[in-house]
This record gives sequence, C-alpha cells and structure tokens, in this order.
Amino acid sequence: MTRLSRGRFVTIEGGEGVGKSTNVELVRKLLEGHGCDVLTTREPGGTPFAEEIRSVLLGTRDEAVDPMAETMLIFAARAQHVAKVIKPALLAGRWVLCERFTDSTFAYQAGGRGVDAQVVVQLANLAHPGLWPDLTLYLDAPPHSAMTRISTRSLDRFERERREFFERVRQAYVARAREHSHIVPIDASRELGSVQRDIVDAIEQYLATYDNP
Amino acid sequence: MTRLSRGRFVTIEGGEGVGKSTNVELVRKLLEGHGCDVLTTREPGGTPFAEEIRSVLLGTRDEAVDPMAETMLIFAARAQHVAKVIKPALLAGRWVLCERFTDSTFAYQAGGRGVDAQVVVQLANLAHPGLWPDLTLYLDAPPHSAMTRISTRSLDRFERERREFFERVRQAYVARAREHSHIVPIDASRELGSVQRDIVDAIEQYLATYDNP
Repeated sequence: MTRLSRGRFVTIEGGEGVGKSTNVELVRKLLEGHGCDVLTTREPGGTPFAEEIRSVLLGTRDEAVDPMAETMLIFAARAQHVAKVIKPALLAGRWVLCERFTDSTFAYQAGGRGVDAQVVVQLANLAHPGLWPDLTLYLDAPPHSAMTRISTRSLDRFERERREFFERVRQAYVARAREHSHIVPIDASRELGSVQRDIVDAIEQYLATYDNP
Repeated sequence: MTRLSRGRFVTIEGGEGVGKSTNVELVRKLLEGHGCDVLTTREPGGTPFAEEIRSVLLGTRDEAVDPMAETMLIFAARAQHVAKVIKPALLAGRWVLCERFTDSTFAYQAGGRGVDAQVVVQLANLAHPGLWPDLTLYLDAPPHSAMTRISTRSLDRFERERREFFERVRQAYVARAREHSHIVPIDASRELGSVQRDIVDAIEQYLATYDNP
C-alpha cells in the first residue's frame, strides 16, 4: 500500500446540509486505507487568518454585502489557505482533502449572486495559479431536502438566502459537473448507505486510474 | 459659490504618520468653503462590513499573511466601500474625500510586498471599474521622521514593518506620483504651516482648473 507516493488534491462540494462534513470523514478513511497521508481542511477558512475572514463572510448584519466584495473576500481567504496549508502539504507529498474550494465560488458567487464566471476564473488564477482539484465529489440534492436538514441549526448569512438562490447554486454546480471531468456528481438525496457506496466507488475508481494512468 | 454642481473624488495618500487625518480635515473645510457638499471617509474601511475587514487586515498575529491574500482582502473592503458609499455619493453629486485608496495598494502591496503592479490594476478594475481619483494629494516624508511621530501609539501589522519596507512604499508612491498627473506631491517633512499652505494652493489650483476646464 505504499504505491501512492505523490499527493493529490481532493475536494468535496455541494449545497447546504448535503452531508459534506460526514463524507469528508469517509473519504479520509478510504484514502488512509490506501496508504495515503491525508490532510483534511475546509473553506472558507483553514488557517487562523482565513477563519477570521470566514467569520466576517458568514456573519449576519444589516449591511448588504456587494457580490464582488464577497467574491474577493473568499479568494483572500483562499489565497492564504493555499499558500500556508494546501500547497505546502501537496509539495510534501500529502493528499489534501478539502471541504469546498473554487467550485463553491462558481456555484454561489457566479451562479447564486450573478458575478461573471470569468471574474471567478481571473481571481482563481491569482489566488491559486496552476492549482485545481484532481478529484471533486459533488454531493447533489434539491435545496428543499437539504434545507430541512439544517433547519435546526442557527443560520449564517448564506443559509438565510431564499429558495431561488439555492436553485441557482445547484444549477451552477450541475452545469459545472457536466463540463469538468474531475467533478464526480453523487446523488445525495438518497439514504446515507447508497450515497456512501457511490463515494467508495468514485474513490476506488480514481485510485485505480491514478495507479495505472 | 454654487458653481460646483458635480462631485469629484479626492484622496489623501502617504506613509505612516505624515498627517493624513489632520489634512483631510483641512481639505474638507476648503472644499466646503467653495460650496462643495463633502463626504469624508477612509480606507481600509468606510462601511461597517469593510471596517470588520480592516480589523482582520491590521490585526497582529503569529501567522504570516500571504501578500496576494492581503491584496485581495484590501480590494474586498474597497469594493464594498465603493459600492455602498463612494459611488452613491458621487452619483448624488457629492464630493468624496477619502484617506487612502488604490494608490496605497500600489505603494504598500506592490511596492512594499512585491505584488505585481499589474495584479493591482486587474483587481482595481474589478473592484471599482471606471472609478479613479480626480485629485490625489500625496503627503511625502522620509519613513524615519514619520515613524517617530507614531512611535507613541500601539502599532498595527503594517506599522510593525521594518524601515526597508517603508522605503519601498515611499519609492512606489514617488514613482506613481511622477507618472500620474492627478497626484500632487506635497513635502510633508516640513512644519505643518508650510505643508498646509501647499495643500491650500493645490486645492485652489484644482478648483480653478475644474471651474474653467
């Protein structure tokens, strides 16, 4: 099981309450079972400085946040996370498993807020030049079922958005998954056992391809 | 004195402790004396959300901040400030008098930190498309004299930088002032009376030009 010597960048994406955190744990165990040295992290955040930015980003207040300001704030946190955590780990041969990355920005800020997707590309190329996920598991579920699951928690600035916002986010995720082969869509509206069987399959398939390119 | 009906964007720039805040007050009074409706504001900050970003930016911590992350954070605050305060005021015919704006980013992040100036241009065009100061007063003083003036205050993350950093910041300001005619350099190493006489002259001259284009 020492056959995997070079790290890869794996991300978990999806809307609110689709089970990203739970499944990050599953993927971590799967990768470790294959001898990978795994660093798990999350966005927005991932370093103390970036977590401070996260608090500003998710905080609720009377002042409406300009979509471009929001997008730049997310990429500021991301640039720090990449420079201080993700890139050093990958260069050291570790696998990085991250909950949310730039696909979230295409979904929420481009899809949800209407920021030009080319602006997201431009900022991504400044914040993490040459770095894109090797594999992305996109957990897909209709907004209404997902929102039910989080309804008991206190809501952050994004979770307070309306149904239409989350529909646009989902559509953007689905469109992006269709266009990018590194994104594997998983139907997360089913019961956890079925979802996790698909995740195991996706990881096993990726590792097989990776092993025999 | 009602001859000035359309607002202009005036900024005050310069290194630490050169007297920006004091002279913002002078400029405000001068402009108001000419019948201008003046909104004074400052960066980073200028809205509650942008002031939260300012706290993250200036806060001191063990974690080193990536220069690109720092630059994007500043532009996130700026995009919000422009969208919610500066642009609405200018569109309403008010004059906006702002302590620090994008020339600070050319000086501190490009000059001081070594971020590519073209990246600053790129982010500026996203954060405030088509908006640049009409007049900028650049208060110039050697870092050592300026640092003496602020030595009694508690120092933020920028003020803790070394002498070399502030030399690069100053060089970038001076170079930019040479290349951009809207920037009027003022020798701020002299006693306040002389500095303020030059500021009065610069404002009077701008208003005369403005009045008779």
